[in-house]
Amino acid sequence: MMQAAGQAFWLKRFNLERICEPVHMKSPITLTRIVKEDSMRNRTVLVLVLVALVALARVAGAEVDREKLLKEPGVYATFAVFKLGDQWSHMDKQAKAAAVEEVKRVFQMHADKVSVDTHLVRGLSEKADFFLRVHSKEMIDNQNFLVDFIGTSFGKALKNTDTFNGITKALNYVPKFPEDLKAELKTPPPQGSPYVVVVPIRKDADWWLMPQDARTTLMKEHTDATVLYLKTVKRKLYHSSGLDDLDFITYFETAKLDDFNNLVTALLQVRENRHNKQFGEPLLLGTIRPLDEILEILSR
Amino acid sequence: MMQAAGQAFWLKRFNLERICEPVHMKSPITLTRIVKEDSMRNRTVLVLVLVALVALARVAGAEVDREKLLKEPGVYATFAVFKLGDQWSHMDKQAKAAAVEEVKRVFQMHADKVSVDTHLVRGLSEKADFFLRVHSKEMIDNQNFLVDFIGTSFGKALKNTDTFNGITKALNYVPKFPEDLKAELKTPPPQGSPYVVVVPIRKDADWWLMPQDARTTLMKEHTDATVLYLKTVKRKLYHSSGLDDLDFITYFETAKLDDFNNLVTALLQVRENRHNKQFGEPLLLGTIRPLDEILEILSR
Amino acid sequence: MMQAAGQAFWLKRFNLERICEPVHMKSPITLTRIVKEDSMRNRTVLVLVLVALVALARVAGAEVDREKLLKEPGVYATFAVFKLGDQWSHMDKQAKAAAVEEVKRVFQMHADKVSVDTHLVRGLSEKADFFLRVHSKEMIDNQNFLVDFIGTSFGKALKNTDTFNGITKALNYVPKFPEDLKAELKTPPPQGSPYVVVVPIRKDADWWLMPQDARTTLMKEHTDATVLYLKTVKRKLYHSSGLDDLDFITYFETAKLDDFNNLVTALLQVRENRHNKQFGEPLLLGTIRPLDEILEILSR
Amino acid sequence: MMQAAGQAFWLKRFNLERICEPVHMKSPITLTRIVKEDSMRNRTVLVLVLVALVALARVAGAEVDREKLLKEPGVYATFAVFKLGDQWSHMDKQAKAAAVEEVKRVFQMHADKVSVDTHLVRGLSEKADFFLRVHSKEMIDNQNFLVDFIGTSFGKALKNTDTFNGITKALNYVPKFPEDLKAELKTPPPQGSPYVVVVPIRKDADWWLMPQDARTTLMKEHTDATVLYLKTVKRKLYHSSGLDDLDFITYFETAKLDDFNNLVTALLQVRENRHNKQFGEPLLLGTIRPLDEILEILSR
Amino acid sequence: MMQAAGQAFWLKRFNLERICEPVHMKSPITLTRIVKEDSMRNRTVLVLVLVALVALARVAGAEVDREKLLKEPGVYATFAVFKLGDQWSHMDKQAKAAAVEEVKRVFQMHADKVSVDTHLVRGLSEKADFFLRVHSKEMIDNQNFLVDFIGTSFGKALKNTDTFNGITKALNYVPKFPEDLKAELKTPPPQGSPYVVVVPIRKDADWWLMPQDARTTLMKEHTDATVLYLKTVKRKLYHSSGLDDLDFITYFETAKLDDFNNLVTALLQVRENRHNKQFGEPLLLGTIRPLDEILEILSR
Repeated sequence: MMQAAGQAFWLKRFNLERICEPVHMKSPITLTRIVKEDSMRNRTVLVLVLVALVALARVAGAEVDREKLLKEPGVYATFAVFKLGDQWSHMDKQAKAAAVEEVKRVFQMHADKVSVDTHLVRGLSEKADFFLRVHSKEMIDNQNFLVDFIGTSFGKALKNTDTFNGITKALNYVPKFPEDLKAELKTPPPQGSPYVVVVPIRKDADWWLMPQDARTTLMKEHTDATVLYLKTVKRKLYHSSGLDDLDFITYFETAKLDDFNNLVTALLQVRENRHNKQFGEPLLLGTIRPLDEILEILSR
Repeated sequence: MMQAAGQAFWLKRFNLERICEPVHMKSPITLTRIVKEDSMRNRTVLVLVLVALVALARVAGAEVDREKLLKEPGVYATFAVFKLGDQWSHMDKQAKAAAVEEVKRVFQMHADKVSVDTHLVRGLSEKADFFLRVHSKEMIDNQNFLVDFIGTSFGKALKNTDTFNGITKALNYVPKFPEDLKAELKTPPPQGSPYVVVVPIRKDADWWLMPQDARTTLMKEHTDATVLYLKTVKRKLYHSSGLDDLDFITYFETAKLDDFNNLVTALLQVRENRHNKQFGEPLLLGTIRPLDEILEILSR
Repeated sequence: MMQAAGQAFWLKRFNLERICEPVHMKSPITLTRIVKEDSMRNRTVLVLVLVALVALARVAGAEVDREKLLKEPGVYATFAVFKLGDQWSHMDKQAKAAAVEEVKRVFQMHADKVSVDTHLVRGLSEKADFFLRVHSKEMIDNQNFLVDFIGTSFGKALKNTDTFNGITKALNYVPKFPEDLKAELKTPPPQGSPYVVVVPIRKDADWWLMPQDARTTLMKEHTDATVLYLKTVKRKLYHSSGLDDLDFITYFETAKLDDFNNLVTALLQVRENRHNKQFGEPLLLGTIRPLDEILEILSR
Repeated sequence: MMQAAGQAFWLKRFNLERICEPVHMKSPITLTRIVKEDSMRNRTVLVLVLVALVALARVAGAEVDREKLLKEPGVYATFAVFKLGDQWSHMDKQAKAAAVEEVKRVFQMHADKVSVDTHLVRGLSEKADFFLRVHSKEMIDNQNFLVDFIGTSFGKALKNTDTFNGITKALNYVPKFPEDLKAELKTPPPQGSPYVVVVPIRKDADWWLMPQDARTTLMKEHTDATVLYLKTVKRKLYHSSGLDDLDFITYFETAKLDDFNNLVTALLQVRENRHNKQFGEPLLLGTIRPLDEILEILSR
Repeated sequence: MMQAAGQAFWLKRFNLERICEPVHMKSPITLTRIVKEDSMRNRTVLVLVLVALVALARVAGAEVDREKLLKEPGVYATFAVFKLGDQWSHMDKQAKAAAVEEVKRVFQMHADKVSVDTHLVRGLSEKADFFLRVHSKEMIDNQNFLVDFIGTSFGKALKNTDTFNGITKALNYVPKFPEDLKAELKTPPPQGSPYVVVVPIRKDADWWLMPQDARTTLMKEHTDATVLYLKTVKRKLYHSSGLDDLDFITYFETAKLDDFNNLVTALLQVRENRHNKQFGEPLLLGTIRPLDEILEILSR
């Protein structure tokens, strides 16, 4: 059933080249299997050490280039949103601690393919407790990471409440903008902001059927409204048509939510807003927090 | 209550002709009943062997012609979408392994009537873990297979989150297209692609009340937009009006999701898009994986 | 609080006349109470025998005239749609068998008032496993039967996912149709068809505010589109305004789903379709199966 | 934080005047607290007897005037809709019987403030098993009763699926109607009807922005359509704007559902229907049954 | 990853300055950790005393200025709406009492950063049992409080059914209103009212694209309609664009729900109402009750 192109794809997917490398470098899936079998023979400890070593080796040698992934076009992003179920609170402390370690190992084992950001939503939305923003060069790498994450004891206690898929692309309208606006857009965005906002967007048919020039005019108006906030709000855009029930995922980071409220109010006042069939629903407001802190909060 | 035509139908449905064949060839339903009764007399093992033998014999002798089903009009398709429930993770390893074997037997026992493709969705959509695409010459064969599948121990742990029913039909608009476009459409589609996308569609009343010629014009425009992607995206269409709360199920396979995103964006920009009352919702993005791999992933 | 008319109603409802009949004929509700009390005195077996005898007697002597109910105006129908919950699969074989017998008794005990058809939906819709179509001369008889059905051990394991209520009425538009169309409509419908489709419908305000003549014109157009399918698709109409969040329940039986798909596509192409605020959602596709088979399938 | 007007309100709410009455008359809430404390000192029995006595005394001496509540303007109504959860069926007979008694006591203890009607929905709607219609002179009395009801063992097994709040007001349009229509409207409504229908309604902005005269014209048209059914359908109207996500709750009682279906069909055919943004959704169809019967049915 | 501005933010968030203060003043999070570790060494009692002392000290010395928070612009509000789950009713009395104390401690520990109002919704809405209105100068303080609240044993038994986020801002339209209306608006609002209503609102694109003058005209009309009710209804407005799937949260307190129903009816009759894409859905009606009373009611 699978032919030339397909086979090459699957070969790449399972790191099959790698298995032939010296020092018995194995794919995470193969390793997981070894763990399972060995654990039945009571050799778990040894294997866990091995896994950790290999994982470390891989992280050291082959960690995916996060900065590149966050800048380049053609990168696939999956926003996976989760809420913790009841069963977690019935687990004892030790089981929770083991589950947390298992999660960290899954993050490490995929670190050569995917870059993952973690955000705490609990308290600011009823819809979720946290979400992962996963980037990679192939959507199936996002899937493989998330399948492993969901397969952990911690993952089994989660309800996956939402998932948004997108791809980064070269700028569409900016090249036609006037030079002064282009210059403004080079303002360096803020760094280290605590707040994150994700707004999925779907456009109406009128938007898509508009000539490119007309859309550029409206997008210039939209962009003009953002200039005031370039210093305090960092933005990133993903295209989702055909990958999800969305057209765009817009992602923001800021330390000043009052500015962000003003920015969005300004964007509601430009004509392009008439063509947002969906804006949010759900909008996700949260704070950027390290994986460890999120796991600690949810394990209390 | 049941008369001539109806009786013939039911006769065919239960393979009653077959029961009269030599070597005691029996229908799966009859066999299941035997299994039940025998198990009460502790003869399960013998029967299971019998079932396996018969199943094998049937597979060998009477497997449904998959290629024909995937090409011909008048074929019924059911997309059955599932998410694994909590109870599965509470089962022990042995019970899971037995449940997996039970699933495989159900697939084999219906292999003479239905052809089933398996797709992993977990990680790329919150809505499901996987879906089955079932094809046969009678909708009731899809139902009988799915009823048996849902009746397994594994099936009982599943939540059936969505089901789409459709029928394949002869091409509607293509015969009126210009010759060069018809020629383009003969481009062989890609094989062995890893990604699958399912987009259910519902048209508005204006679409259906448009004269056939006007619709052909719009569909030509739609088809022109797809030509660029014929080499990288494989397509299949099912008609659903009256069989589901949909008008069409569109099914795609590709190795290049960036191309697919461009294709869908192009399709949003043709006038026919104004008449899509529903486009996706849910769109399902997944990867084509063998049954064994899906069962292995979900049984971890 | 209850006065003349109301009292007559309640008297009729509980079969109070009947209780005065010879041979101690009692209403089902009275019997149920006896069962309960007796069972506390360990005389269950005797009572069950009595119940069965009485039920049989009633079935023999007083079964509701199904043919009349299916033809006459002023008959109340309740479509009760169910999905089996998790707890059922945790019950042991014996408890399941007892529960199945309990269901059959409830059917028998109400057989003098309600006629019930049973349909399997599992496999063809994620929304339900099966549905009952209940007919009687008073809506409260439908309720009393369903309350008893839901009160069985089997019923307690069910989730009632949808319920549609309607009433049959004399034909509204047909009397004004031309004679040749009227003649066509006398085509005898198919019998013993395996497939069933239920499509609930809600019309928009424009439809209801249209003069009766204009609606007759549109309904003639609608009816013309159905002529081709009179031989292969059997139809039945229920009026629901005020009895449910619907205006109509349309019910179909057929052996040819390809014809049915063509019929619905034809109906989408007439002007009356513009006034369907709701068409399906949920549409239910299933197969007509005897109660025993449905119970057997769900008890596996 | 609490000042003059507010304090008077709270004083009234807790019956504080009453506590000073002779024979130690106490508010239900105070009593509940005594029960709790005493039960810790193993004096529960004594207290329960006391509670019953006091409750009886209150019922005898101070039952709210139901007839007045059902006629006057300025009365607050809460429709509380419930569905029984799974846990109930796992309780044993004795626990159920105790829970039923507890419910009856809550009804009695609030009988001096609220009037409660009970309706069985099970079998005729998937949305609920029953609903309570609660009337009183202050919304907080409805809340206090329902909080106590939900706090019983029976209440804890319920899911509150819907709640509608409204207030009765003097007639708005009728004073401007012609005299003959006013006379017709004095037709005495039917009494003791078994069926109940509740239809929540929300009007569109056009309705509310229409001049009062134009609305009176449309409401006269609406009222004309109801004249034929005044003898067989009893009606009651509640205003909900600001108290719920509704504008009106319309409540009907009838013994003739065929007439009711005709009435609603007639109301769909007047121009005022264009302004119903929501009509039903959910419409609730049920039968009026005494509390005892509903508790008996749900406790089987 | 974290730079200058961001670091300052995080420093402030964790009260790191404070840790250097004399008398070992620690942040709540640090304390919680100590509690955990110590409890493993069986020193819980001592630590709990310590926690209580520190909490008291903080409350005494550093309680947030509630009056200022309720008046000033730039204050962040989170409305967190909860419904109690089944598991709570399975807990014994002692465990419940301990859980209630834990909740009170969380309230005290955050009292220097957030001000929290508590409202009982049970009985008047099926959507929730109660909601918290949380105010602070930084949204993350709302989140940290709510994360700790949800992390208590009581919080784990809750389902967070809705959350609305907003920010207070200086008056937008009032400065352009005529002087007499401005004077009217100085009417002191009622104090100590028992009822609370929350109405989330979303405006349509036409509203936002209207020139500011046109919006001021419509808002004057809107405000005129409220003058009659300034004495009996207290109002407060929050801006939510970009912080939630809303544009505004409107909050009301009153002792007279009949007046409130008249007020909302009047607001439905001004032109600004045409631009409410969402008004309520859910509207929350409840009563203002102290935390203790709500915990007592839910712990019965």
